Amino acid sequence: MRLAIIGFGAVGQGLARALVETGFVITAVADSRSAAINPDGLDIPEVLARKEKTGLCGDTGVGSADILSSGAFDILVEVSPTNADTGEPALSTIRSALAMGKHVVTSNKGPIACAYHELKALADQKGVMIGYEATVAGAVPIVSGLRQGLAGNTVQSLHGILNGTCNYILTRMRDEGLTYPQALQEARDLGYAEADPTSDVKGIDAAIKLVILANTVLGMDVTLNDVAITGIDSITLEALSLAEAEGATIRLIGEILPGKNQVRVSPRVISLDHPLVVDGTLNAISVCCDLAGQVTFIGKGAGPYPTASAILADLNFIRDAYDRGA
Amino acid sequence: MRLAIIGFGAVGQGLARALVETGFVITAVADSRSAAINPDGLDIPEVLARKEKTGLCGDTGVGSADILSSGAFDILVEVSPTNADTGEPALSTIRSALAMGKHVVTSNKGPIACAYHELKALADQKGVMIGYEATVAGAVPIVSGLRQGLAGNTVQSLHGILNGTCNYILTRMRDEGLTYPQALQEARDLGYAEADPTSDVKGIDAAIKLVILANTVLGMDVTLNDVAITGIDSITLEALSLAEAEGATIRLIGEILPGKNQVRVSPRVISLDHPLVVDGTLNAISVCCDLAGQVTFIGKGAGPYPTASAILADLNFIRDAYDRGA
Repeated sequence: MRLAIIGFGAVGQGLARALVETGFVITAVADSRSAAINPDGLDIPEVLARKEKTGLCGDTGVGSADILSSGAFDILVEVSPTNADTGEPALSTIRSALAMGKHVVTSNKGPIACAYHELKALADQKGVMIGYEATVAGAVPIVSGLRQGLAGNTVQSLHGILNGTCNYILTRMRDEGLTYPQALQEARDLGYAEADPTSDVKGIDAAIKLVILANTVLGMDVTLNDVAITGIDSITLEALSLAEAEGATIRLIGEILPGKNQVRVSPRVISLDHPLVVDGTLNAISVCCDLAGQVTFIGKGAGPYPTASAILADLNFIRDAYDRGA
Repeated sequence: MRLAIIGFGAVGQGLARALVETGFVITAVADSRSAAINPDGLDIPEVLARKEKTGLCGDTGVGSADILSSGAFDILVEVSPTNADTGEPALSTIRSALAMGKHVVTSNKGPIACAYHELKALADQKGVMIGYEATVAGAVPIVSGLRQGLAGNTVQSLHGILNGTCNYILTRMRDEGLTYPQALQEARDLGYAEADPTSDVKGIDAAIKLVILANTVLGMDVTLNDVAITGIDSITLEALSLAEAEGATIRLIGEILPGKNQVRVSPRVISLDHPLVVDGTLNAISVCCDLAGQVTFIGKGAGPYPTASAILADLNFIRDAYDRGA
């Protein structure tokens, strides 16, 4: 199957490398300032070398609109930076691709958090699929886990560590006695926190992921405004010490209670032997189900290759369905 | 879709209850001494009541052979007790159903451990599917996790807590200072260990599950004889104390190294903060993958409803594929 990759930063480039010898052909790539299109398949090592040397993956004056109008792809892979407020410009690109009858796979949280139900209806109408495993918890296969591995269960609650930056900061505060500003600075120095860490430390990034899970696999219809959000920026070493004395610690926990239509993100005291207590930048999600009981998934929540892993899972799922004649 | 359930013990009965209002119709059930068949769908509450009252699900003199020859089902669900040496009689039943062009879903480890490659070839030839999520780690969706959620990854290693009985015994020895015989007796009293616990405590049950994972999702071709097996029956409190002093404990770990064609089960010293260290009868599996890194799955490894959860996942997967016209 032929892929068009929109977004050619760390994730797009990591994906391009991971796709070598998988049988998928990349016919188009675009970054924010250029694009390259070849209906017979691009020379990916050449594109990667050009990107590294010039900062551009292709020719300026060409863009994602040209890729869409070329129609020379079966699956649009949207991995550009996210805009959580409007989902744009990715949302419009994804909408156009679905309307053309193309499958879409994305790591971009914005469009899925803002408009999943609309996009899903459009995909269904056109008989195509939309994959978004990479939008939540990186390599952790939580979407396919809920959709397939736990299909037939009713999910009673979901609790998750969904932001690696916050988990890193809280881990370092507990393990090393760093203050919040010290741990944040360390996370910045190591590239785990962005220059403006607001979305992470205020709990917004985790809340967006909860909205995606709530709407796409838990049968709910909520927006970011429906999520009660408290961040980690007021957590003190004293609070961590009090928790520690009880054999517990503090982590930023996202919670969905489908039966109560309740979604929230907040720092919570949690027993140290709870499976959700993972260290560093890991993500973890526990779901309580009527049949399965509690099932926990743990893994890397970010990074080019973990994200590529999730995208590849979606691509393979679409190819398998297509091979079976869907 | 119409289901024939072979095996009507705790798992078969739990599944029958879980299937209410799922759209699946049960047209036949068999236990070891009787069977009931109704091509229009059995009255399941009546069958369950009869089983509870008389110990029989249907009429004596009728059996699984009659169910097969009736052909009145789309999916054979084989949940009878396992025989790990030969896989029989389940293996023959499954082979017959596949040869008739029927899908098969099973929780029965024997046939999958003994003959997966043969059964898969037969299923492919007949254009039907064979689901076996329930054979490994109960409700933990490890098969679909590896097949779909981590599709596109190369698995470099797999480590797992795959026997809840052993994990319960080792947990109680560590937490309560019970000796091995005391902890085993407690596990028996609570129904976590069978009267003859040999297969569990000698590591054989875990080894069978490793054979299934190795052959079905890790591209290997091994038998139980290829697994190096050491059980937990020689573990002493002294050994646990030595591990504890190092911030570690001892658990029965199953290991697959696909690159070395190596499969083994043995008690291993493992750091207490490793995600595989789960308590009680839980199961846990960690896989190290080239793209995703380490991903861990934790959940209930046994019980009628956790097993029903895994069977339902397979049933839904087959129904979804069928709905798409596979």
